Amino acid sequence: MRSATEPAVSPVRVAAVQSDPQVGLENKEKNVAATLQRIEEAADAGARLIVLPELANTGYGFDTREEAYAHAEAVPDGPTCAAWSELARRRDLYVVAGITEVEGVHLYDTAVLIGPDGYIGRYRKTHLWNREKLIFTPGDGFPVFETRIGRIGLLVCWDIWFPEVPRILAAQGADVICSANNWVWTPPPLFDDAGNCMASYLTMAASHVSGVPIVAADRVGTERGGKFLGCSLITGVNGWPIGGIASAEDETTLYADLDLTETRSAVVWSDLNDLPRDRRTDLYDPLLGFTGGTVLPR
Amino acid sequence: MRSATEPAVSPVRVAAVQSDPQVGLENKEKNVAATLQRIEEAADAGARLIVLPELANTGYGFDTREEAYAHAEAVPDGPTCAAWSELARRRDLYVVAGITEVEGVHLYDTAVLIGPDGYIGRYRKTHLWNREKLIFTPGDGFPVFETRIGRIGLLVCWDIWFPEVPRILAAQGADVICSANNWVWTPPPLFDDAGNCMASYLTMAASHVSGVPIVAADRVGTERGGKFLGCSLITGVNGWPIGGIASAEDETTLYADLDLTETRSAVVWSDLNDLPRDRRTDLYDPLLGFTGGTVLPR
Repeated sequence: MRSATEPAVSPVRVAAVQSDPQVGLENKEKNVAATLQRIEEAADAGARLIVLPELANTGYGFDTREEAYAHAEAVPDGPTCAAWSELARRRDLYVVAGITEVEGVHLYDTAVLIGPDGYIGRYRKTHLWNREKLIFTPGDGFPVFETRIGRIGLLVCWDIWFPEVPRILAAQGADVICSANNWVWTPPPLFDDAGNCMASYLTMAASHVSGVPIVAADRVGTERGGKFLGCSLITGVNGWPIGGIASAEDETTLYADLDLTETRSAVVWSDLNDLPRDRRTDLYDPLLGFTGGTVLPR
Repeated sequence: MRSATEPAVSPVRVAAVQSDPQVGLENKEKNVAATLQRIEEAADAGARLIVLPELANTGYGFDTREEAYAHAEAVPDGPTCAAWSELARRRDLYVVAGITEVEGVHLYDTAVLIGPDGYIGRYRKTHLWNREKLIFTPGDGFPVFETRIGRIGLLVCWDIWFPEVPRILAAQGADVICSANNWVWTPPPLFDDAGNCMASYLTMAASHVSGVPIVAADRVGTERGGKFLGCSLITGVNGWPIGGIASAEDETTLYADLDLTETRSAVVWSDLNDLPRDRRTDLYDPLLGFTGGTVLPR
């Protein structure tokens, strides 16, 4: 039972940390220290759910599987999860962060959810991008985690190119989707005249059509020739960015106060419209049939 | 067999007509005449595939079913389809346009595809918005039509809020999606600082994630208290608008030269990435399960 002094579950101040981790074993300790410092700062600013980029403890650009093994840790028993858990416990907050995970011979591009009572769960990236396919094993499902602040769904980077993912998370009742990213390249142009990248718009669209806020933390900087796109954002239940989209260059933290109960009432379109109810799931079977077997050659 | 003088199938100049039809029987003849004039102008400008808004021959805001019956026509045997067909034949072009259709007691919010050889087929809007539910019968499928210029998929307005629709059209091999719209309202804000409405971004996102161009024609103006949002656009295979997004206010026609063969080669992300191939259809079954029966209360 909630005590009288315990804060209300919503609104919740959320934070998207846009940072610049660097691959290389010599950088790992610095990367983790930087995540802890950024989480502390966000906690000082009142954030209770803090999202960091993909592979935030190791950087991204592994040259070989061997190098990835050397960087990787067990989840949740490795030192990075331990450090995040200690901090989450001490500051009474929730952290979502990308981590290079190893389990047996398997490497995973994982996002963990850690709360005031420690490790809650993980999502292993299901849609691997480019050379990730040579390094990581893909995950096999889209969990949604029940927490004291609401139901939290996770996705990682290339997943947002597949609108099925946020749909499946929303259909399980996610009150917020946390998106941990290393957006790195799309077919040109990378940015439009407003300075936004396509991934920002994919995030807005996914949020809007399912009526679920998305906290999308991307990284910046360059690594072994790859340039990351920044443009982190936090969308409201209507899909629009709250307080604007971050720059493509600068380390920063975005904040927003989200009412994580908004997804539970009917989306206010009109008495005759509600996005989940208006879905024609009776007609979507062909989606699987066409793509599972009979899709035309492309 | 194609003769030496016949034009190559691609690139094809496409046009999105942003117009202002008006409901009311006294306006119907003017509405149809306006569509013919705009098609002629687009043909003069070299367009071979011309997309007009939803319900382009009648306007949108029917007060009653009786009023809709009075405006509606048979497809393809009514006078509007006959007029569009005559013009398409004479100018050797393809027209996609919204029309108020009646068949027996059923009213449909339909988009027709008409080519140089006459009527090709129709799509009856499957996702009905707001009071459309009181007027129209929803359609029951997502056809893609094989034509001499490529495979053409159709959708109407509220359909784009359901990313399943463009996915299903793309999975059937659509080379271009024609989107006939009367975008009228979204939860505020209606527009961002760039003057774009959310539907523009939904169109860009759907186009980008399936690697298929979308020609989206919306209407402008007001009708019985409803204001339409304009912001028509034509996206390239990369999802970005070609030549910008139309204004929210003005009647205009957008043009772009689309290579309708681009969707047939692998989308050029990298040797290791291809959007259709990267889909994890093995994991998408839950989409149906969750939404068909066990979705959590929202």
